[in-house]
Amino acid sequence: MDMQTSLLDRLFETGLLIDTGIEGLYGRSGSFEEVITRFEALIDEVGGADGAEAIRFPPGMNRAYFEGSGYMKSFPQLAGTVHSFCGNELDHMHLLQCMEAGDDWTKGQEATDIVLTPAACYPLYPTVAKRGALPTEGGLFDLQSYCFRHEPSNDPARMQLFRMREYVRMGTPEQVMAFRNDWMERGKALMARVELPVEIDVANDPFFGRAGRMMKNNQRDQNLKFELLIPITSTAKPTACMSFNYHQDHFGKSWDISTADGEVAHTACVGFGLERIALALFQHHGLDVGEWPARVRATLGY
Amino acid sequence: MDMQTSLLDRLFETGLLIDTGIEGLYGRSGSFEEVITRFEALIDEVGGADGAEAIRFPPGMNRAYFEGSGYMKSFPQLAGTVHSFCGNELDHMHLLQCMEAGDDWTKGQEATDIVLTPAACYPLYPTVAKRGALPTEGGLFDLQSYCFRHEPSNDPARMQLFRMREYVRMGTPEQVMAFRNDWMERGKALMARVELPVEIDVANDPFFGRAGRMMKNNQRDQNLKFELLIPITSTAKPTACMSFNYHQDHFGKSWDISTADGEVAHTACVGFGLERIALALFQHHGLDVGEWPARVRATLGY
Repeated sequence: MDMQTSLLDRLFETGLLIDTGIEGLYGRSGSFEEVITRFEALIDEVGGADGAEAIRFPPGMNRAYFEGSGYMKSFPQLAGTVHSFCGNELDHMHLLQCMEAGDDWTKGQEATDIVLTPAACYPLYPTVAKRGALPTEGGLFDLQSYCFRHEPSNDPARMQLFRMREYVRMGTPEQVMAFRNDWMERGKALMARVELPVEIDVANDPFFGRAGRMMKNNQRDQNLKFELLIPITSTAKPTACMSFNYHQDHFGKSWDISTADGEVAHTACVGFGLERIALALFQHHGLDVGEWPARVRATLGY
Repeated sequence: MDMQTSLLDRLFETGLLIDTGIEGLYGRSGSFEEVITRFEALIDEVGGADGAEAIRFPPGMNRAYFEGSGYMKSFPQLAGTVHSFCGNELDHMHLLQCMEAGDDWTKGQEATDIVLTPAACYPLYPTVAKRGALPTEGGLFDLQSYCFRHEPSNDPARMQLFRMREYVRMGTPEQVMAFRNDWMERGKALMARVELPVEIDVANDPFFGRAGRMMKNNQRDQNLKFELLIPITSTAKPTACMSFNYHQDHFGKSWDISTADGEVAHTACVGFGLERIALALFQHHGLDVGEWPARVRATLGY
């Protein structure tokens, strides 16, 4: 049995995660949720004084915004569009007959205006753009939402629906680079306080297809993405629990976000994979929170 | 300007809700979220001692479970199925050409195994069924999740993505009826503590089509659903902020849930519409939490 299955089985046995019959789609126990709540409070403790504007978007976003983001160019395989039944009573009868016969009843579903949020910050850029130019000090935002990625896997650290906490910085290249560098240090210090072993490495997003290979190389060559890695289900391939992303002017150009000086705004974000961090804590300190090291418990306010 | 638009506009102006360009899909400010967090703590205070098992499901559920629930029979118009791109690189090129031309690119999306959760308790029944017969004292569960209903509206109290907190009781008819009656009293007392005017009335779910009319009448005649109503955007048609539902043996039969005595389990649930309750508080006490009545602020721990 591989390490992934082994950890997932133990999480199911203890009830920390609950099998729903779909890979990457799990219920969470109260104890699992409490770890996330407490870790988020720790993030607040570290980042709170920066005065970020808190916004909480729901787990779906405007499809037009999604289309404008370019996500379907880069990661078409991961996106989830939301579809609904829009027919009349006769159509409904046909649909029920189709279900009854065990046929595919989803063909008649029509796309709504909503797409599942692929990363917590995607709804933010068009929202900020509508406000006009950024103030001189730039913008700083605090986000969290459930995100969807269509990548079924038996690795509990690769869920299809998971929560991402993010801080997003917008402004001049200097402002956003300083933010990203700062959070790389903060991230390491934060994980040290909960006694998790980390390394930071340059990384790339999972761009689709052969054309995507060039995007991956570009992203790496330009040091646009770093990840904070923690071994969870594999020591050889540790899991990205935080990422530190410099988007250059990609979102600034896409959404026409400008700095106080009228330049195209640069943006950067730091993301926390909340379920992954909880899993890292359970994997390293044990599945019983009561048995975690005293210093870790104290840091998390247990 | 009607009351709905007026409240929504004021919520946008103050930034409590954030326009995303889609009716019923809004960002929430930190202040809005804090009201929900504090109201949930109040729910915990009232219901916590009952020892419910807390489970948090993500905002999507197993499509097979959804199909088994009968939701598409009753509310096909409200459901949201999640679809993804499953093609190769050539398909991807076509998709991008289609987007570029402004054509409908969503036709090629294929249904995944996931459907958006229509009510917080839907993923629970098959989960509990797998555990075997209920213990003698029955089952009690504490749930919360984002739910989806495809019903775009300019009434801020009718969102497409919103959070529902629920307690669910399973057991004998006597056990679940006692639970429901108890929560109807608790609900009234709870809303009195935050100084919201309520009435409780018999109600029905929005069953689809002409055949649905009979379902609505049956539900009302049998007193299966009650709602706690608070005026938000209309005094003539107050908004359901809580509901108290007796499902008889519907879910017990659908999922084969049995009591300790081997009878088909009956179930009931009490649901809190968290965004609706927050909106009721803002509508009745003002959009500035700092100006709310002292007793309300104290109850919510401000």
